[in-house]
Amino acid sequence: MREVAVIGTGITRFGELWEASLRDLCVEAALGALTSAGADTLDSIYVGNMSAGLFVGQEHLAPLMADYLGLGGVPATRVESACASGGMALRSAFLEVASGMSDLVLAAGVEKMNDGADVTGVLATASDQELEVYYGVTFPGLYAMVARAHMEKYGTTEEDLSWVSVKAHRNGARNPNAQFRRLISLEDVMTSTMVAEPLRMLHCSPVTDGAAAVLLCPLERAKEFTDRPVKILGSGAATSTLSLTHRKDPADLDVVELSGRRAYEMAGVTPDDIQVAEVHDCFAIAEICCYEALGFVEPGKGKDAARDGVTDLGGKIPVNISGGLKAKGHPVGATGIAQAVTLVEQLRGEAGESQVEGARIGLAQNMGGSGASSVVHIFQGV
Amino acid sequence: MREVAVIGTGITRFGELWEASLRDLCVEAALGALTSAGADTLDSIYVGNMSAGLFVGQEHLAPLMADYLGLGGVPATRVESACASGGMALRSAFLEVASGMSDLVLAAGVEKMNDGADVTGVLATASDQELEVYYGVTFPGLYAMVARAHMEKYGTTEEDLSWVSVKAHRNGARNPNAQFRRLISLEDVMTSTMVAEPLRMLHCSPVTDGAAAVLLCPLERAKEFTDRPVKILGSGAATSTLSLTHRKDPADLDVVELSGRRAYEMAGVTPDDIQVAEVHDCFAIAEICCYEALGFVEPGKGKDAARDGVTDLGGKIPVNISGGLKAKGHPVGATGIAQAVTLVEQLRGEAGESQVEGARIGLAQNMGGSGASSVVHIFQGV
Repeated sequence: MREVAVIGTGITRFGELWEASLRDLCVEAALGALTSAGADTLDSIYVGNMSAGLFVGQEHLAPLMADYLGLGGVPATRVESACASGGMALRSAFLEVASGMSDLVLAAGVEKMNDGADVTGVLATASDQELEVYYGVTFPGLYAMVARAHMEKYGTTEEDLSWVSVKAHRNGARNPNAQFRRLISLEDVMTSTMVAEPLRMLHCSPVTDGAAAVLLCPLERAKEFTDRPVKILGSGAATSTLSLTHRKDPADLDVVELSGRRAYEMAGVTPDDIQVAEVHDCFAIAEICCYEALGFVEPGKGKDAARDGVTDLGGKIPVNISGGLKAKGHPVGATGIAQAVTLVEQLRGEAGESQVEGARIGLAQNMGGSGASSVVHIFQGV
Repeated sequence: MREVAVIGTGITRFGELWEASLRDLCVEAALGALTSAGADTLDSIYVGNMSAGLFVGQEHLAPLMADYLGLGGVPATRVESACASGGMALRSAFLEVASGMSDLVLAAGVEKMNDGADVTGVLATASDQELEVYYGVTFPGLYAMVARAHMEKYGTTEEDLSWVSVKAHRNGARNPNAQFRRLISLEDVMTSTMVAEPLRMLHCSPVTDGAAAVLLCPLERAKEFTDRPVKILGSGAATSTLSLTHRKDPADLDVVELSGRRAYEMAGVTPDDIQVAEVHDCFAIAEICCYEALGFVEPGKGKDAARDGVTDLGGKIPVNISGGLKAKGHPVGATGIAQAVTLVEQLRGEAGESQVEGARIGLAQNMGGSGASSVVHIFQGV
């Protein structure tokens, strides 16, 4: 396999973007990635998107993106794995460059969620329709069950969950593209509206429009485009049962552990080598599970990490320095690519007041559904 | 790049399969592919599917398929490119094996269209929502415009279109999995209900449920699984404008020519080397355009090919020997994989009364939308 590097990044503002359409967002992020690398063409495009068909009535998104980029002709593929669509699009782009088929490959992600659709209903299509949706379960409900199981097994409390959200907003406040840029207190979180017990409103990621893109090429050509390429050291993907009820133990997101293990093995690194990470905190409990499943802390110790500052900026392993899905926002198909954009900035030392000092190796973990799919990428500044 | 072979195939019956769910169809085809290769595990799965979200309310299809195959854990990715979803899933699987990332990779395609959804409305999401759908154009209307343009440019007639359908049903009658297995006459076609002038009902492919799967591995390992592997010689993909109105000339599906040229170059063959082909005859006019765009006949001569027997069994270049989308049926996400299944049977000499004598090299062309995406694969019996 050829070695692969990220040579350009682009991202839109995240939020309720009433003035921008799905195609506007695609093009803005993609042009950002091309421009930042000084590239005016490319060989292939992957677009991560969960459900533009249900959200805005548009399938066949990849040719649309090529068309509106003025690059009609270029092969273009949409990849879907629910909220892990972006990460899986990055993996597909990585494989195309690694294979030798193409040199310049764009991995983009986009979702336009604020356009009138029943968002909770659309997101529910990522769970098992026959075993979950028909019985009325929604995603806050599914992750509430994960949280309850984690509380039962490890003694995690509602306050532990809440510190994750406080940290997310503290980080998001420094991110100019974040949906929410205001600090929140522990009390704010713990008195916010109950959504699905024990998850309150401020434990949940919001409904977001946005797009992000990264441009990849073979590592050996990266210096033609940038002085600071970021190498993709490893890519690990995994699946688990689609329905939560079929898992051996809903308290542990086994899919995260498996995807992480595969990425660590491919990269030849261990959790101790990771200096900065973006993980899939669609709900606060998911971030705590990720701390444990990715080996940043011992099993059962995830509950303490945010409160104790372990995963804060300046801590042992800063996590979701972008604000994460909670504060940066969660345009579901774009999230996995946005994580990569954040890490590339960090590993290039371009993250300004959010910079993790001396970060050279970073990890991104992107999840689909209640943990039916997960993909982990490990990056290294070159 | 590593050389890649198809080592197993599976396909369901195509038709109105009221007794089978989306997941039933996925599993039946995938198990067929695994069983035929004597494989009891695999490394990665790609699922081509256009719109299970809109058709049956289920996104996140790839982990579902891994789960219901009993292979939860395996990386799984859904690929969507409207009606070219199957062909693009095959291309992604091919790239993963070629890259060296994985050895045993399944490419499946599935669509469950007869489950109560507004099929015409769902399919319309493959066209440009802002420039086409909002104005009420549907796919029969779009391909009717292609047909009108072709008639104007080349003198193609309604009778020319009709011979394509007569041939399709003659071939479909020999295919045990086909949706329609009865012969139709020229008069049947030319007196069938007008759908979108000049396209009549029997110029249009039907609404179909079905699934298909192929199992790939590195060519050097293929003999572990089968005595008759089929090598993938080339893969070419392309896009064009999403909306028909932006094309330079709607009479020529330029995307087919470009995807074909890329596949021929990669394979190191010319149109004259192709002995059997499956092309995307969603409407009869599309097959005629493909004859020309793929170089099987001169531009403007496509109209004569079916009537003159050039593309019949026994002709110079038999096309859609399976019955094509018209008679075999068109479960949109499965079609590109079903084409590959047909060609593998042909190149192994296992096609029974449909066998093209001495066929060693075959081509599959799968299209999305009104020609916004196209993917061509060239196969060789080993």
